[in-house]
This record gives sequence, C-alpha cells and structure tokens, in this order.
Amino acid sequence: MDSSKIRFGVIGSGRIGKVHIENLVNRISDSEVVALAEVVQTEREKIAQLYHIPKTSGNHSEIIGQSDVDAIVICSPTDTHYPIILEAAASGKHIFCEKPLDLSIKKIKEINDAVKKAGVKLMVAFNRRYDPNFFKVHEITKAGKIGDPHLLRITSRDPAPPPEEYIRSSGGLFLDMTIHDFDMARYLIDSPVTEVYAQGRVLVDPVFEKAGDIDTAVVVLSYENGAMATIDNSREAVYGYDQRVEVFGSEGMVTVTNNTPDNHIYLNRDGVHTALPLNFFMERYTESYLGEMQAFIQSLLEDTEPPVTGEDGLKAVQMGLAANKSLKEGRPVKLEEIS
Amino acid sequence: MDSSKIRFGVIGSGRIGKVHIENLVNRISDSEVVALAEVVQTEREKIAQLYHIPKTSGNHSEIIGQSDVDAIVICSPTDTHYPIILEAAASGKHIFCEKPLDLSIKKIKEINDAVKKAGVKLMVAFNRRYDPNFFKVHEITKAGKIGDPHLLRITSRDPAPPPEEYIRSSGGLFLDMTIHDFDMARYLIDSPVTEVYAQGRVLVDPVFEKAGDIDTAVVVLSYENGAMATIDNSREAVYGYDQRVEVFGSEGMVTVTNNTPDNHIYLNRDGVHTALPLNFFMERYTESYLGEMQAFIQSLLEDTEPPVTGEDGLKAVQMGLAANKSLKEGRPVKLEEIS
Amino acid sequence: MDSSKIRFGVIGSGRIGKVHIENLVNRISDSEVVALAEVVQTEREKIAQLYHIPKTSGNHSEIIGQSDVDAIVICSPTDTHYPIILEAAASGKHIFCEKPLDLSIKKIKEINDAVKKAGVKLMVAFNRRYDPNFFKVHEITKAGKIGDPHLLRITSRDPAPPPEEYIRSSGGLFLDMTIHDFDMARYLIDSPVTEVYAQGRVLVDPVFEKAGDIDTAVVVLSYENGAMATIDNSREAVYGYDQRVEVFGSEGMVTVTNNTPDNHIYLNRDGVHTALPLNFFMERYTESYLGEMQAFIQSLLEDTEPPVTGEDGLKAVQMGLAANKSLKEGRPVKLEEIS
Amino acid sequence: MDSSKIRFGVIGSGRIGKVHIENLVNRISDSEVVALAEVVQTEREKIAQLYHIPKTSGNHSEIIGQSDVDAIVICSPTDTHYPIILEAAASGKHIFCEKPLDLSIKKIKEINDAVKKAGVKLMVAFNRRYDPNFFKVHEITKAGKIGDPHLLRITSRDPAPPPEEYIRSSGGLFLDMTIHDFDMARYLIDSPVTEVYAQGRVLVDPVFEKAGDIDTAVVVLSYENGAMATIDNSREAVYGYDQRVEVFGSEGMVTVTNNTPDNHIYLNRDGVHTALPLNFFMERYTESYLGEMQAFIQSLLEDTEPPVTGEDGLKAVQMGLAANKSLKEGRPVKLEEIS
Repeated sequence: MDSSKIRFGVIGSGRIGKVHIENLVNRISDSEVVALAEVVQTEREKIAQLYHIPKTSGNHSEIIGQSDVDAIVICSPTDTHYPIILEAAASGKHIFCEKPLDLSIKKIKEINDAVKKAGVKLMVAFNRRYDPNFFKVHEITKAGKIGDPHLLRITSRDPAPPPEEYIRSSGGLFLDMTIHDFDMARYLIDSPVTEVYAQGRVLVDPVFEKAGDIDTAVVVLSYENGAMATIDNSREAVYGYDQRVEVFGSEGMVTVTNNTPDNHIYLNRDGVHTALPLNFFMERYTESYLGEMQAFIQSLLEDTEPPVTGEDGLKAVQMGLAANKSLKEGRPVKLEEIS
Repeated sequence: MDSSKIRFGVIGSGRIGKVHIENLVNRISDSEVVALAEVVQTEREKIAQLYHIPKTSGNHSEIIGQSDVDAIVICSPTDTHYPIILEAAASGKHIFCEKPLDLSIKKIKEINDAVKKAGVKLMVAFNRRYDPNFFKVHEITKAGKIGDPHLLRITSRDPAPPPEEYIRSSGGLFLDMTIHDFDMARYLIDSPVTEVYAQGRVLVDPVFEKAGDIDTAVVVLSYENGAMATIDNSREAVYGYDQRVEVFGSEGMVTVTNNTPDNHIYLNRDGVHTALPLNFFMERYTESYLGEMQAFIQSLLEDTEPPVTGEDGLKAVQMGLAANKSLKEGRPVKLEEIS
Repeated sequence: MDSSKIRFGVIGSGRIGKVHIENLVNRISDSEVVALAEVVQTEREKIAQLYHIPKTSGNHSEIIGQSDVDAIVICSPTDTHYPIILEAAASGKHIFCEKPLDLSIKKIKEINDAVKKAGVKLMVAFNRRYDPNFFKVHEITKAGKIGDPHLLRITSRDPAPPPEEYIRSSGGLFLDMTIHDFDMARYLIDSPVTEVYAQGRVLVDPVFEKAGDIDTAVVVLSYENGAMATIDNSREAVYGYDQRVEVFGSEGMVTVTNNTPDNHIYLNRDGVHTALPLNFFMERYTESYLGEMQAFIQSLLEDTEPPVTGEDGLKAVQMGLAANKSLKEGRPVKLEEIS
Repeated sequence: MDSSKIRFGVIGSGRIGKVHIENLVNRISDSEVVALAEVVQTEREKIAQLYHIPKTSGNHSEIIGQSDVDAIVICSPTDTHYPIILEAAASGKHIFCEKPLDLSIKKIKEINDAVKKAGVKLMVAFNRRYDPNFFKVHEITKAGKIGDPHLLRITSRDPAPPPEEYIRSSGGLFLDMTIHDFDMARYLIDSPVTEVYAQGRVLVDPVFEKAGDIDTAVVVLSYENGAMATIDNSREAVYGYDQRVEVFGSEGMVTVTNNTPDNHIYLNRDGVHTALPLNFFMERYTESYLGEMQAFIQSLLEDTEPPVTGEDGLKAVQMGLAANKSLKEGRPVKLEEIS
C-alpha cells in the first residue's frame, strides 16, 4: 500500500455495514472510510455525516471507480456480490465481502478466477473465526493439545426466527445459517470435508414449511482424516443465542460455553440463577467483526493471503448445497458430487 | 410378596454382581441375598462369607430352584441370559437382568413372551436412568419445562478401551456401549425412535479393526414426533469418563456436566484448574445401581410393572442392530427394518 | 490390636450416633459394634436390632466396662463428655468423641492429661477435615501449590436456625457452630493462631437475643506466620447449607464451591438455573463421617497418633472462648489470654 | 446545556486520561473533547493529533478558562485535584475527577462547599460501580431480591505490585487501593458505615515495609443497619486481577466470578483447565470507564445530581483514614472519629 492508511469504500450501510464502518473509522487506526455507496439516500447521508465520510453515492460503481479507494467492503444483498466483485477486481480494488459469496458454485469459481487474474485480495467475512472463544479453541487444537481430532460438535441456535420476508429470500437454513457452522467445521479441523449427511424438520414455525425451508437441523460431516462432526441448528432458542463448539481428540478435549452480559450468580429458595447468553450476533460477535477486519487490513499491509479466502467461501457453499441434496435424497452426499 | 423382605438369588459375582450384592445386603433394607451362583469356587466362597450368604452353588439352576428365592439377579455373560431367564420364569421367579437381554431380536421376543406367560416381572438393568443427573433431566423434560423436545445430544465416551479379549466378545460398539445411549435416547424423549443413521471409525486402536469393530461413532436418531438426537461415542477419552446429555426444546434446554470427585478450583500462573470427571462407571454410576435396584424392589412390593421392561430391552437392541446395518450400508435405517 | 476387627461401644444413638453405627457396621470392614449405650430404651432396642448389636445398656458405664470393647464412640451431650472420657481412659479404652470435648479449657486439659496418662488414643470428631472438598484444599496447600498462605476465607452458613431449646443449651454460636470453622482454620493453615477478633449480630431471629446469643458473625484470625483469616457465619441461608473455603497465597489460590444433588443446568426465558447446595450436614458431610472414622481406626490399627487430637479439641474451644471475649469487649483478643 | 454536545476539557493524558478521551471522542455521541492540558509536550501533541483536539496547553488554567469548555475531566496527580477543582468551580465548569478527591478530609469538605456554592456538578470516578458485574449485584440487592443484607464480602487483589516510586507516593494501601472497595461497600449496602476494623501485613514485598506501607489486608466494616462487611486485599495475586463481591441477605445471596478473556474449557490427562481472570483494570474495567462517563454526561444533560458525588468521595477517604487509624491502634475505629 502506498498510503499510510488503507482507504475503504463501503457498499451497503445496513446493520452489518454500520458495524464495519464503525470499526474502520473508530477502532482501527490503519484504516479510513473515504466513500460510501448506499441506495437509501437518507440513510446514506446520515451515516456519512456521523462518520465524516467525504464521498457518497447511490451507485456502487462510482465508489469502485474512485482512484483514492484501496479496498471495498461489500455489505449489499447476496445477489449483488457477484457483479460487484467482478467489477471491483477489474478496477484493481481489494475486496472484503460478506458471506455467502454467491449461492452458485459456478459463479463463485468465476469470482475466484477473476480475483486471481486481477491480482487483488479477496476475504470472505466468516467473522466467527475471530470470536475470542472459537479463536482460542482453534489455537488449542492447532497447537496439538488435543492430539488428533476425532469428533467435533457444533451447536448453533438463533434466539428467534427472522421475519417471513427474510426467510423467503434467505437461500434456506443450510446456506443462510449453517453456512457459518460449515466454515467453523473447516476452521477447527484441518482436513478436507468429504461427505455431508443432513436431516431437517419444521418444528419452530410453519412459516418455514410454506417457504420450502426447515427450521431445525442435524448435520453429520466426514473428514478425510477420519474425524466426524455433528452440527445442530434451531431457528429459535428461547433462552438466547446458543453458540458452542467442542473438539474431542486423542489427547484431550476443548469446549466453550456461551458468553453472558455479566457473571452474577443469584441464589434464593428456588435455585441458583445466572445470566442468559448474550441475545444475538450483534452482541455476541462484536469483537469478531473487529478482528476479521484487522486481519484483512493486516493481509493488505503485509501483502499476504487473507486468512479467509475465496476458496473458503466456495467450500462453505458447496457444503450447504450438499446438505440440501442430502436432506432431499435422504442419504449422505459426497462433497465431490457438488460442482 | 409374602415375606417382609425380598429374598434374592444372585447369579454371577463379578464386578457388577458384587455391586448388586453390596446394595441388596447393606444399603437396601427391604432385601436380603439368600443364594449365590458363581462358577469360580474361590470367588463364590469369599463373597458368601463376606456378605453372610447362606446358600451357594456353582450351578445357577440350583439357585433358581430354591423355594426361598423370590427373585434373581442375572450378572452372568450375555449368552447365558436367554436360558437363565426362561428357566427362572418357568420357576416363577422375578428377574432383574443385566443389559443386553440378548443380541437376537427373536430370542428377546421369546424372553418377553415367557416372562409374560409366567406372570413374573422382568427388569432390564439400564442403570443410567437412575443416575441423579439424568434422572433430573428426565424430570425436567417430563414436566414440560423445555416444551416440546426438538434436539437431544448424548455424549458417551469411555476413559480407556477394554482388553482385546473383551472387545472380541462384546457384540460390537453399538450393542456393548451405545446400547446405554439408545436406552437414554428412549428415556429422555417420550416418542418412538423410527430411524437410525450411524457412522463409525477406528481412530483409537487398530485392535478394534482386527476385531471387526469400531471405536469412535456418531449416530443420528429420528423420532416419530419430529425430534432428532445425536450420539457421539469414543472408546478412549484420556480425561476420564465423559457422560453428558442435553435436551433442547421449544421452551428451553436442559443439560448436565460430568461428576467430579470434588469441587476444588485451583488458580496459579498457568491457569484455572479443576478436577477431572470421575474415572469410570463404578464411581460415576454408584448411586444409579442402588436406584435401579430400589426401583425393581418397589415394583415387586407394590406389584407394579418394573420401570425398565423387557420391551425396553428389546428396543435398545433393535436400535443397536439398526446402527450396525446403517454403518454397513451407509444409509439411514428404519427401525421397522430390524425384526 | 489383638482382634482382627476393632470392637466398638457406642454411647448415644441420636442422629450422629446412628451415622457412626451405620459406618462402623456396614461401610467399614475393620470394625464391628459390640455394644450400645442409649438412655431411651425404645430407641436403643430399635437400633440394636437393626444393626445386630449384641449388648445394650441404658448406662454407659456398663459399656465402658465391657472387656470386649476396644474403643468407644461418644455421641452423648457435651456436658457428659468429660466424665465419660475420664472413665473410658481409666478403663483403657480408645476414644472417639464428638466436638466439643467440653466448654471449659480446664476440663479439656484434664481430659488430655488423663488420656495421655492412660496411654489410650483420643480423636475429636472434626469431620469436615474429611470432606472431599476441604481435604483437597488441604492437599493442595500442604503440597505448597499456593506458596506461602496469606489469606483464608471461610464461609459457613446453616440453612435454618435450630430449635429454641437447642439454642439455649448450644454454648453459643462461636462454640457450637464456628468451632468447626476454627478447626478448619487450623487445618488449612499450618501455623498457630495468635489472635481472634469477632463481631456478632442478631439479624435472623430475636430468639437468639433472648438466649443471649447471636446468629450472624464475622471473625478475623491472625496467624503466627502473618497470614490472616476471615470467617463469616449465619444461622440462616435460605438457599441451603453454604460451606466454602478459599486459601490465597504467594503462588496461587484454591477454593471450593458447594456440593449439589446433581449437575443439571436448565435454561429458559428467565435465566439459567442450577441446583441449590445440599441442604444440611447429613447430606453434605456423609462421606466425611466415614472418612474420619476410617482415619481413627487406621490410627488404632497402626498404633499412630489420631489425626485430630485432644490438643486440636482444646485449641478450637480456646478460639471460641476468645471470640466470645472479643465480641464482649469489642477488641481483638490474643489466644494466650484464654487459659 | 446550550450546546447539543457536552464540550470537554481534559486535564492529564496519562493512562486513565487516554481512556476518558477515547470514550468521549469515539464511543459517546453526546460529547466532544475541545481542549487538553498535559504538561508533557510530546504526549500532548500526539494525543491532540490522534483525537483531533483543537486546543492544547501545558497549563490547566488555560483550559479551565476556555469559554467553550462545559466540563473538565481531571486525570492529574491527586495533589493537584484540590486547586484544580476550586479553580474549575470558580469558572463555572462541571467537574469529573479521578479518585481520591484528596487525602485530607478538610480539603474535601472545602471542595464540596466550593462546588455547591458555584452550582456546578462534581462526579468522583468510582468507575467500578459501572462494571457490569457489580452493577448487576447492585441491581439485584436494590430490588430486594436478597432481602435485608447481612453480610458483604469483597475480594480485591491486584495482579502485581506497582513500582516502588508509585508505592512511595500512593497514600498507602487503604487510600490507594482499598478506597475502591470502601466505595463498593457503600454502593452495595444502602446504610451508613459506622465503624472500621483493619489488619495489615507485609507479605508480598519488603519494599512496602520500607515505604511504611502494607501489601496485604483484611478490613471489617459495620453498618448502621447491622450488616457487616469483610474486605480482603493483596498487592499480588499471581493468577491475575481478582475482583469479586458477594452479598448475603435474609432472602438470598448474590455473587460474581471474575471476567476472563474467553470461556474455553480444556481437558487433558492432568485436569480441566480454563482461562485466568483478565489481567488488570484496563482490561477488566473497560466498560465501567465508559459507563461512568455516560452517567456523568446524562446528569449534565438532564440537570440531575451526578450518581457519585463529592460526599461519596469524602466518605471513601474517611473510611481509608479510619482503616489507617485502626491498623495503627489495633482496635475498631468509629467513622465519626475521623473528621
């Protein structure tokens, strides 16, 4: 990088876009936000003023074309990722893109080819890798402290279902929600996933059935090294956001509990009572959003490969599509069947 | 019962036989042990003297034939269960039998028919139902405090593999070890299991492969009410006996941690350190062996059906055979396929 | 000992007497109970029959005089300890005595002299030393794993106040309840206590005030090695029996949580809920009663000094009397002031 | 306030000054920092540039005199608090001051009089009241969920002693370190403290003795409502910053554990291992620094009394002086003796 600070253009200032802008402006010293593309004008102006963003537009191409933009952050809807990434790569901009890259393997491969050809860096926002809990689990497993990994258990349950409108366009449970767990499964065990077996149900709300989706699922993964993983998902855990993993191996085990707003323990005649888990991803994963962005910026500054690549983005989607196929056909599906 | 105390004949005084004798003699006031059958003479005499058992024999038929024996406890090898139960039923003795009843569905059905015809009571020793932790989980789920159950997770890992000789005659992981988890799955969710999907590996010791067995497994169960369960097993958890369950439902979740010998927390420069789980079943399930026997005796005294029946014994074996078939054929297996 | 088993005479078969009889008869293989003295005839006969105790009497002297009694267990009221011990020592019987030995320093010194002169062994029943939690804390501190001890914190709160009648004859909070904590303070830090500072209040029930007693207290202890301890007591913790210690030193810290009947964790919309502590000493200290008796028997079999001596019995009472004096005079009291 | 944002002048940009500037600039939307006084020129310029602070000076009077400064934040050494506060009050500026206000009761009273006379608001930075753990404990006790408070236990141990130079000018353990606990004791129990009893030792490092100070202490507090509190302090807990409280009352108890960087649990053959507490106040109390400043700003915006007043600042110092006197004289000291 020529500049002393990485100059970012952000595309999309919805909920997650705001998180990235806040981190880039206020919490990371090596970055600044020089441009914002947002289709909703009032929102665009409000954010620009709040964060002193000099240039704004309703059209992302304007931002991508700006000569003082080093890298872009894509927080727009999934179906816009493909054209935006191709355009940004062609303009020589580095790219940080929200998950999933796309729902089509073919398009993701095109994305990866384009990025490679353009010589720009692409990082996919699997933020959970930067959650302090999961980061620590990864550190311990990577250091060999549990020996060879044999079993991984991932629990991932949302506090409440999204609105019906969101459900209809989400891509389905496996590609919208489990996709994070698929990446986690790849992050925590360093061996290729070879097979996916999935079961799903509608137990939470019939609205999922109407949308051709499921709300409760169990997935079993097979790894090349013999390890196995289970994932369990629900769209509604009434007690809050339930995000845990456990890795068991030949020399030990590591697991994590949920995060809570405080550590109080209250005892009365009825029992011992403690705090519920943090309610949802904005509270639970606050630090992970900062961490992933810092890692991206570091890869730009040091000219190294981003820690979560387009290949990682491809694999997670491939696993989601394999889970869909498994659910439909009632049998385990080899990952190589999905291409 | 005519007698004020239930008079027991015990068949087999190996490790688990001794546990039952200790409980019947010293910890339960409504019972006495009046006869012991044990093929090893020195062992038989030692135990008889220690517990003041008046009558002993190397032949179980002598014990079964004794007129002052109200009920027998069968702790002999699995392949002896079938003939002993038939003989005991024919003699009008009530029967408490270690798991599994047998490895053949046909023979178990014969057992259940014989017992029914004879009008005697049969209880199968799925002791874990009487572990205080699992008992509490059952109590909470049964009371509706988690609403409708959606997901069950069972972790069951032994501290170390059994000797090779044991492995060769164990009936295989699913019928020797997972069978307890199959019963737990039926105990904790009150709906018939309809399908079993199993994956297995040899990751702990090649000796399992030589024996045609596996040492690490993941099982997925489907219930008629839509709930799903996962079971994960390993023959070797170096940190001790890992026995946990978690039931998640529409209104909450309940889980348990492992039991430890003490509750100490030690902090030094290196970290915070606490006690490992109790090492194995003799320590962990001490109270459950007492509890199951008390429940059996209560069913005799009150002339009610034992809480764990021959039908429960049948179902667990059926699930084990389904898991074997699933493992072999690489597909989910309906329970009705096993008959 | 000539006999292969230690032959015990038990004096007093109230609540704690029954615990010792049960352990001596059913849980310890090196002992038998050959005689029981109990003033209430119906109680005496019931217990004798239940445990097959051959000889009983309403008069303890008869029991002490029995030639086949090797050792006596004293579970009668505190004011009877002094004469019984003197009589037993004179008869050459070993003695296991419930706490406190007496409330008078002078009489305790006489007891210790008599026992020494008679060459018999005396153990005082500070059972908590054999609780698995506190035993572990002791093991860790003794092994030097926390370095030099600096601070000890003892929390000891009963679930509910005793009956008024008991309060009136209890000897007061410090000699009835805190006495266990005084012994714990001596057990966990291996240095003489030199000073006691006590504050007390009536916050639970005015009945304590009427009895000239207190129900809530804080005590500060000073040790010769510079360490300090705090003790906090209440006669009523509505959430159950609260029994915890924490030792902090130059190289670390060790603490314990309370024991619970099970390890369940239940989560619903309202919070995370776990089990209350075990309700009172009969449940919490079950294993410690067994442990102390085994230790006493071991000292008899190996002819070594009992692990809790008459000197230990003396010191705990001395601390209690110092606490009383401190409370009355509103100042720290040196232990040497109490003689 | 006329301005839409509170305009702050900060005096002192050392470690804690930087924390406040960061919060005022980046994390609180209702504030801006318009001036900085810092005697070290390079430091002053660095901070001013980083946070875009328009006006800086080496002399705090210049900042106080600025017409566009609404409120000042005092982060300079303790002995400067008195003159700066008097000057700021005279200039009509609101004041947020680090603890302690001063070490002299007389000067603190003058401060409080001056502030009152000038009609400006003064808040003392007892940040721990805004720690999420202690805040929750306060919330629970205030809501009456533990009934009448009977016992409070505060543990407050630093990870490592400060440098010798700091020790020499710290004012001593009770006024430098325990002062936070004195305020906590007042925050958690809503009744005046009437008496202080203190014991202290040099167990960590002889350097404290050389400085006429102690490094380990136990304090007992008496409240007007009959409640009692214990505080234990150490200058060195090798396992990290140990900050816990426990409030016990007639209807229950509430306590907190320490905060950790993550929630991992690692099990191997040696034990179960979890993360150490966060190392020191900059990590542990991050959120509390934000919380206290937000509370101060809210009191300015709503023209209400700040939640931690000059009276609170006075009482904590009074308790520290009482503890010093108690330590010196070996007896409990009434708070009214200190004036």
